[in-house]
Parts: sequence; C-alpha cells; structure tokens
Amino acid sequence: MKIRSVDEFEFIERIKGRLPKLKNAALGIGDDCAVLPYTQDKYLLATADMLIEGVHFDLSRVSMYKVGRKALAVSLSDIAAMGGVPKYCIVSVGVPQAMAAASLDDFYSGLLKLASDFSVELIGGDTNRSEIFICDVCVIGEVEKGFLARRDGAKTGDSIFVTGSLGGSIKGKQYDFIPRVREARTLVGSFKIHSMIDISDGLSLDLYHITDSSKVGAIIYDDCVPVSQNTDSKKEALSAGEDFELLFTAPSDITEEALSKKLGMPVKKIGEIVSKAEGVKIGKEKGRKAELKKRGFKHF
Amino acid sequence: MKIRSVDEFEFIERIKGRLPKLKNAALGIGDDCAVLPYTQDKYLLATADMLIEGVHFDLSRVSMYKVGRKALAVSLSDIAAMGGVPKYCIVSVGVPQAMAAASLDDFYSGLLKLASDFSVELIGGDTNRSEIFICDVCVIGEVEKGFLARRDGAKTGDSIFVTGSLGGSIKGKQYDFIPRVREARTLVGSFKIHSMIDISDGLSLDLYHITDSSKVGAIIYDDCVPVSQNTDSKKEALSAGEDFELLFTAPSDITEEALSKKLGMPVKKIGEIVSKAEGVKIGKEKGRKAELKKRGFKHF
Repeated sequence: MKIRSVDEFEFIERIKGRLPKLKNAALGIGDDCAVLPYTQDKYLLATADMLIEGVHFDLSRVSMYKVGRKALAVSLSDIAAMGGVPKYCIVSVGVPQAMAAASLDDFYSGLLKLASDFSVELIGGDTNRSEIFICDVCVIGEVEKGFLARRDGAKTGDSIFVTGSLGGSIKGKQYDFIPRVREARTLVGSFKIHSMIDISDGLSLDLYHITDSSKVGAIIYDDCVPVSQNTDSKKEALSAGEDFELLFTAPSDITEEALSKKLGMPVKKIGEIVSKAEGVKIGKEKGRKAELKKRGFKHF
Repeated sequence: MKIRSVDEFEFIERIKGRLPKLKNAALGIGDDCAVLPYTQDKYLLATADMLIEGVHFDLSRVSMYKVGRKALAVSLSDIAAMGGVPKYCIVSVGVPQAMAAASLDDFYSGLLKLASDFSVELIGGDTNRSEIFICDVCVIGEVEKGFLARRDGAKTGDSIFVTGSLGGSIKGKQYDFIPRVREARTLVGSFKIHSMIDISDGLSLDLYHITDSSKVGAIIYDDCVPVSQNTDSKKEALSAGEDFELLFTAPSDITEEALSKKLGMPVKKIGEIVSKAEGVKIGKEKGRKAELKKRGFKHF
C-alpha cells in the first residue's frame, strides 16, 4: 500500500499504538503540543511544524519573508491552542544551492520579526542543502498547570466557540494571521475553558479532533458560523484550513458577548457539545440537523 | 550571491549576529545543543537534526529502518556532547506519496528501537507529503548544571582526547554508530571535562569549533590519532565526518588509561590545548608541526 492511500490520522494512530506507555511525558502525540513535566506549577509544551516548497507554498507566489513568518506562526498557534506562552524556537532548514543568500536572509527576517513580537528566542537548528526549500520549526513553551487546555476536555452541555471568522485564508490570512497567543492566554486566565484547538485543518476536521478525543458529540449551528469576508462560501468556512483561529468549548453560562468583550475581538458561539451517541451534526440553530462531514486539509 | 558559495558556519554566525541578546536561554546557537533554564539543579537541552533523501542518504543503498535509527541517533549524539541525558523526541517527516506505507513503518521501527534503548519518548511531530523523504528530529534532554560540557570551556594546558577510532564511517558506522550517551555521562560524572563536542563534521572541523569558541589553539599529535580499521587513510580519520565519537579536553593530569578503564572503551590522547597565538597545528608528538587544515563535511 502506498502512502497516498493512507489516511494521515489513521497512520498517526498506528504509530501511537506502537509506543510504550508514556513514563515521563504528561501528554504525547495527539494534541497541538506535547506536555512535559517542568516546574511545580508549570508544564513545558513542545510542538513542531514542517513547511515544504511545492507542497505548502510556491515561491513564485509568496516571499521567503512570509514563509519564514508562517513557519514560526503555525507553531505559535499550537502553543496558543494549549493556553501556553511560547519561549524558544529551533529552526531546521534545507536550502537549494541555487537560492540567493538574500532569500534565506529574508526567511530569517520574517521569522525573527514574529519571534520578536512574541518574545520568542531562536536558540538553535540545523542547516542543510536540499533540492527544494524545507523548514521545520520546533517551538518550546510553558503553561501554568491550571491553565492547560487540551483537546480531550470537552463536556456534554459545553458551548462551542470560535474566535474571528473562517474561510478564505488563501487570500492572504494563511501567511499574515496573528497566532492567537494573547487571546488564548486571556481565555485560560479568565474563563473555565474545557477544551481548545487551533483551526489549522478546517473547522469540521478540527472539531472532530475535539469530539473524538473527548468522546462526545457536537451540534454546529450552521447559521452561526462566522464566515470571513474573504469568501462567500459557508462550505469553505467549514472545511478550508489555515484560519488559525481558536475553537474551544466552555460551560454554557459563558456568553459570546462576555468572551468578545474580554478578548477585544469577535467570538461566536457556533454550537454545543452533546453526548457521543448523538454524533456530530450540523444544521440551523432551531431546525433539523445532518451529519457534519469530516472535511479538511489532507497532509499525505 | 547563491547559497552554494556561502560558508555554512559564516552564515550561522551572521544569523547569530542578527539575534537580540538572549534573555531566557542560557546558551543559544553555537553548541551541540541549546541550554535552557529548567530546575534548580538541571538545565534543559534541545537540539534538532534534519536528514534529506539524496543529500544525506540514498534509499537505493540504505534501508528506511537505518535512516530512522540515524535520524534519532545524530541528535542523541548532540545531547551526549553536552554531557546530558536525552528524554523526548519530536519527529517531523515529509513522505513521497509513492512510498510504500511499510517503508514509513520501517523508518519508525528503526527510530523507536533506538528510542527504547535510550529510554527516549516519542512525543509529537508533523507529517506531510513531499517529493523526497525528509525527516527532522528534535530531541529534548536534561543535564545537571555541574555536568554541562560546552565547546567553549577548553583551557590552555588541557589534554585533548577522543573516544574510539576515526574514519571509514561510510562503511557502515554512519548508520550503526551508538550515540556516546553512556560514555559521556560517565565522563562528566567522574572527571573534570573542560569542553566536549561530538565528531559529526570531522575531527579537524570539530576541533576548530572547540578552539574557536574557547579562544585557544591546539596541537594534534598526528601519530596518536586513532584510525579506524575501516580506512587506512590518516587524512580521512582527520576530516571524514559522521564518526560520532566524543572529542573532549580535560586537565593534563587525567590519563588516557584512566579514561579508557572507566569508560570500558579505548580513549586516546591526541594532543593538547595551547594558547590562541600558537594556532591549531598538527605533527608528530615529538617533531615539527604544520597548520591543521579546516577540512570536513560541508552542509551547504
């Protein structure tokens, strides 16, 4: 069987199944970050994201500055999704020999500007030659134990919320998005957040990550999903990836108004967590519901 | 200017020059690992190494099992070079769609076998499709503050030692080497080690990493360099990479006999640290010396 016919998520589950029980790590594969023991009050967080020329970006359409910025931004978004603070990054690159040295400088300029904005320190990495440009950024962060937000904490009766608006990220947001680190910190510091994830693969796929790991179902109110002005397609808002907004669940007494006010940006209630037996459905807030299709970015 | 005409080490220095002064990290770019604050008694260590098909390995000549093993082993060797204990790994891969799923399984089998041998936990990563097979492994470890071995601690009068023998790693050792984690732990636990590095780029280049960062010179005794039985070339022992032995300096009252006995493997004294003004020289132990050529693996 070839990789092209393998489902990435099934493959990851298979790898997970081959691992011995974790002895030291508090949480391994299967969330936005790994969670490791650190101090008495805090966990360490670690995550990595790889970007590959020709798969994730086309250098005839985007600058190396933006690629460098994004290479770090996606991992900062993973740290945000756990409620954490990013601290360090390690950057490995594969660089074509024919690439202009100035382009590689631009890559680091984009990356270092964002690193500076978030007080993240570049502490190491690896440099290699390669036929195509490749980068892999590992980010290490930390989170207070009481503030850790995981995918698997959603509870029946929770409201489902999303920050900002979804869809159309291909028009620019996929490179220019601001990782929701500050918003996530406010959320975990001010509200009881039961579960959280960043929307990288698309709302529907990322919602399934929450419901699968929390062993719950969900109902999404089709008419409440905030659609970006960069698309007029509801379907795209539901399944296009790279919005890098926060999708989270919290007790139902928390209102979207309270969240929006505290975060200083729009937060929409888009549904509720139900029992696993009820499945994952979508439909109007008051009306019939159909199964939510598991649609989103395929990595393999 | 194209990347092919850029010296990798100069490029890394240029990136370093663009970074703000480190605020949190104890040590950033420029050693085998970054060193981060952790507990009162220990530092955290972090390192990453990328392997790229067609640059670092040829899948018509080596199995994915060995590539997977090596992908982790090189980073374990970096942790060893700091005197540390590896704890966790994060593995990002880019996989051709035409690759057999069984090959990717083999990659993880090789990696996980070594991880198990060293009690390292696989805690996360990223999976992508790619035209060629790529992997980047980030390893996180720890070291007691008093045991940390850096590149920049060599002192005039130190003896220079190397474990094992050098050269000919292309005949197999480049894949089958055992990262010297246990040996390094014994060294830092039993002796006063002033500086240490693992030999990945070749003895001469890696020695220059020590002398440059320690601001010292060195004399290598040509006739004392342990040449592997896999080569009859002294030149290769001096400049071929991927031996993954430990190169370290320690006070001159420490003998190679004491070291060999304690480590249970051959350790050779191959020279001594001298003042920076004397340069980096090579020659017979008792005889004339010439400048040691900075020769080794070029990454770009």
